[in-house]
Amino acid sequence: MIPISDALNFLDRETIALPADEIKLEASVGRILAENVRADLDLPPFDRSQMDGFAVRVEDVRDAPVDLEIIGESVAGKGFGGEVNSGEAVRIMTGAPVPSGADSVQMVELTESDGDKVTIKNAAKPEQNIVPRAAEVKAGTVVLEKGEIITKNMIATLASFGYYKINVSKRPCVKILATGSEIVDISEKPAEDQIRNSNSWMIAEFAKKYADVEMLPIIRDDLESLKSAIREAASSCDCLIISGGVSVGDYDFTKPALRELGAEIFFEKVSLKPGKPTVFAKLGETLIFGLPGNPVSVAVTFYVFARTALLRMQGAKFPELNRGFAKLLHPIKSTKGRDALLPASFSTDSAGHLTIETLRFSGSSNFITFARAEGLVFVPAGVDLNAGEVAEIYFFD
Amino acid sequence: MIPISDALNFLDRETIALPADEIKLEASVGRILAENVRADLDLPPFDRSQMDGFAVRVEDVRDAPVDLEIIGESVAGKGFGGEVNSGEAVRIMTGAPVPSGADSVQMVELTESDGDKVTIKNAAKPEQNIVPRAAEVKAGTVVLEKGEIITKNMIATLASFGYYKINVSKRPCVKILATGSEIVDISEKPAEDQIRNSNSWMIAEFAKKYADVEMLPIIRDDLESLKSAIREAASSCDCLIISGGVSVGDYDFTKPALRELGAEIFFEKVSLKPGKPTVFAKLGETLIFGLPGNPVSVAVTFYVFARTALLRMQGAKFPELNRGFAKLLHPIKSTKGRDALLPASFSTDSAGHLTIETLRFSGSSNFITFARAEGLVFVPAGVDLNAGEVAEIYFFD
Repeated sequence: MIPISDALNFLDRETIALPADEIKLEASVGRILAENVRADLDLPPFDRSQMDGFAVRVEDVRDAPVDLEIIGESVAGKGFGGEVNSGEAVRIMTGAPVPSGADSVQMVELTESDGDKVTIKNAAKPEQNIVPRAAEVKAGTVVLEKGEIITKNMIATLASFGYYKINVSKRPCVKILATGSEIVDISEKPAEDQIRNSNSWMIAEFAKKYADVEMLPIIRDDLESLKSAIREAASSCDCLIISGGVSVGDYDFTKPALRELGAEIFFEKVSLKPGKPTVFAKLGETLIFGLPGNPVSVAVTFYVFARTALLRMQGAKFPELNRGFAKLLHPIKSTKGRDALLPASFSTDSAGHLTIETLRFSGSSNFITFARAEGLVFVPAGVDLNAGEVAEIYFFD
Repeated sequence: MIPISDALNFLDRETIALPADEIKLEASVGRILAENVRADLDLPPFDRSQMDGFAVRVEDVRDAPVDLEIIGESVAGKGFGGEVNSGEAVRIMTGAPVPSGADSVQMVELTESDGDKVTIKNAAKPEQNIVPRAAEVKAGTVVLEKGEIITKNMIATLASFGYYKINVSKRPCVKILATGSEIVDISEKPAEDQIRNSNSWMIAEFAKKYADVEMLPIIRDDLESLKSAIREAASSCDCLIISGGVSVGDYDFTKPALRELGAEIFFEKVSLKPGKPTVFAKLGETLIFGLPGNPVSVAVTFYVFARTALLRMQGAKFPELNRGFAKLLHPIKSTKGRDALLPASFSTDSAGHLTIETLRFSGSSNFITFARAEGLVFVPAGVDLNAGEVAEIYFFD
């Protein structure tokens, strides 16, 4: 049995980086940047007015009220081409370029205009109501870094700098296989000793955020069928995720199948609850995860191990779940000899604490309460946690 | 100028519920349940063994060690059909049904078997290592409720109860329109007084989580063009989101166009920074949002208003952003006369507080820092907030 950190080191060591891929902006969210994103222009690209009003010269309006001659206008998309000289003003709109010669904008409310004349009623400070060129960013600046996961809040930045095509890492191809003679398709009504295949569907939904997924047919508890399914899958994908068959019972064939196929098994017992019998192996270049059969174990081990590997293959800077600290609302009993990562939901209290609600937990197969999970709480082996104590947590993404 | 809460009341009042729609499980994440989801079977469906071992009768093993006759086996997917009588045991695997007559499972490590005989070395307690039938859920129980947003952590539950097709609300059809003569397509290199169309791309990316989106061509600052674009769009979608043209400048045509088309305008000035000139109107049955032109204002007003309306149309129980409390790392200056909702990112500290990092904020157009935003922090009008103080926050989803 190896610690979680050792297991993650194996992932780190065995994961091969995928090549880059060019995709369109509209398909970019969730992908990992394979290039630094740079501003291709100054922002603002010109001295920009923040107000509707008049572009003026500060020295002209020092003894306001004064009358100036309106020599033109500057609107968004069409600046005033000429120069503002002494005694002159240019009508200007919010977002429009401040014309050459002017060094201040007086808001329209503090002016009065009539035909070609405007009365500037108040003096103006230099640069007033103006965002100077490049105040937000200078052309060439790196604004998003290689290895960052693209989020929807980054879209405005990518669009603004012309990234209608983006270099990201290729997504891994993931195949998903459930094994177990008791498992039937979700469209079937299970007999009394059968259950529906929730694992493949859950893994597929989790994995499709980071990968191109394909769900394979259910394999019965039969060594030869499992071997041939694994052999075929592993020859045609970057990562194979198997659920079930990883214990040491007479009908657990995942490890025997991997051994007989000559796969290299890196770990098969992790000091983790739920998820102790998680298997990580490699057949050729294909990563293989053998996750325990019950749905909550599948979810936890997917998020801790498989997700990390899928993001690492794409060169993600931070492939592991985001970590934090929060306050327990209820005590948690620890497990002897194994660290626990238990599904939890989070709230905040009026003192600004993040609080942890562990999910009513009747055995690790209770996927119904898992439906509301937002992350995991870490319970060190043998260390019971009290209500009110601060615990380490991991946020699902 | 109306308060944010009044603006949200207008949305509430004017939003019409969309009909239901049947979709496949693999397309369900992000959709809103139009039906209660019920367990269609007990879970577990039988008394389930939690261990590999032997199903026994407690009374038989009271004076362990005792020898019992092995009369068969129960494995996952194939239970033992018969009955366990006095002096008998059934070999059982993890996850398999406990046979009739047996009332306890002794783990294999505390037994020794040879051919048809097993020595049970230790006495067993009633129900030991057994999860009783229906312990997790009883058939008929509502496990997910109408109005909940389907998340990926709900997939195992939906799959387990045979929801390969699900009744959800129809997604609204949303059209997106940017207006402004300075705006060019993102694949173009803007001239000095132009900017790329980041707003439509951002709104599309935000909205596609809740709606079917279509991006319309950019409309120049011209009343007639805008009128005809709005008329056409509104006749063929549930919601039209316009960015730009909502101020009161000479080139702001959104409100004049809506008025000339006979749209009913419910509000056009909200006590919100950024986002004061947000417009909410209706033309026929189509909701129309006019969002301010700069990208951060677009993001904030989308999340606060448009997102709420899109979720409300689908009957979501909680259409507004999740609310919470967190501790400010830095002071925030308030705005006189207007509440502020400022983009922020969140972390936790070692005391379990959720902490607020307001984004370096050089005017509301700084979409580059917005790229890292995770939510909004509420700053009441005229009330400066100090570092260390607890503030109200809203989480992006």
